[in-house]
Amino acid sequence: MAVDLALLHAPVRNRRGEIIASAVTNLDLHDIARTARTYGVRHYYVVTPDPEQRDLARTIVDHWRTGPGGRHNPDRREAFAILRLAADLDEVCGLARRENGGAASRLLATSAVKQDGEVGFAAVREWISQGRNLLLILGTASGLAPEVFVRCDGVLPPVGAGADYNHLPVRAAAAIVLDRLLGPGGDGTN
Amino acid sequence: MAVDLALLHAPVRNRRGEIIASAVTNLDLHDIARTARTYGVRHYYVVTPDPEQRDLARTIVDHWRTGPGGRHNPDRREAFAILRLAADLDEVCGLARRENGGAASRLLATSAVKQDGEVGFAAVREWISQGRNLLLILGTASGLAPEVFVRCDGVLPPVGAGADYNHLPVRAAAAIVLDRLLGPGGDGTN
Repeated sequence: MAVDLALLHAPVRNRRGEIIASAVTNLDLHDIARTARTYGVRHYYVVTPDPEQRDLARTIVDHWRTGPGGRHNPDRREAFAILRLAADLDEVCGLARRENGGAASRLLATSAVKQDGEVGFAAVREWISQGRNLLLILGTASGLAPEVFVRCDGVLPPVGAGADYNHLPVRAAAAIVLDRLLGPGGDGTN
Repeated sequence: MAVDLALLHAPVRNRRGEIIASAVTNLDLHDIARTARTYGVRHYYVVTPDPEQRDLARTIVDHWRTGPGGRHNPDRREAFAILRLAADLDEVCGLARRENGGAASRLLATSAVKQDGEVGFAAVREWISQGRNLLLILGTASGLAPEVFVRCDGVLPPVGAGADYNHLPVRAAAAIVLDRLLGPGGDGTN
């Protein structure tokens, strides 16, 4: 059983709902790698179709994985060790399947607004406890494009407090989703 | 009843355990303001004893609260509207007490490692449901200095998966703590 996480920079929506490719940020590499490593995620896939963006990301990743950054800060090196770059979701699915020994991972999308095909956190915790391989998919910018939801096996309910305002950074959403799925559960007192 | 959150840049520890003042980052302003606003936090206090650091933070905050940033992105303006700057924890406690109508807030520290005086998440949810005023305190760098724990009414258990590696960004820790305390609870399906 393994849980992977993919951060998609395309296809995502901008604030006007148009389908775009967003830019990779240094911050999303660091923060989500650290959080994913803390929660035992197998691989954190940073996904962008732009080869120059992948080159930029690779330069940063190498600084921490094999370069001076990692020698200075071994904890950061360990976080970056689970990071992988990919061009699109198909490539991620293929890589995950290979690591699963041939089995496809269940694809689980995330969204800041309610979507069709919702699967609750308790149900997904049950999948994980049954040993299912899972690929969690987060979108940058204003969230995943409709075509991503269509190919997923389910979508998690929006996180947050369920109130009027929900503008979580994707870094915060990733942390909350991982804690709800892979944290201690119950009252969280460890 | 109100929950406030304070991010302390001093007194905190560096990786060698020395007591330092850390630098304010643009990122901690944005990410934690957005998350705190999403979870209904009353005020997000950014705390540093350095007047130049407060001036820098104020310039950023004003850009989003009253300047062009907020006109371009009203959601961000709304997040920054709850942000307050303060010089130290005493000032935060005084401001909170005034807004509470004279009642002191309970001070609740956070830590990435277990500390004496732990209060579980379920117990703090109970405090909140009883209408207690609460001030959650997070530390930058390698965490709060011992003198902060001493004056608090309790400390939350470390968040994370309870495994060997726990190097969450403070932005992720803030999100997880707020979700555990102010999120929907139960299986989190809203």
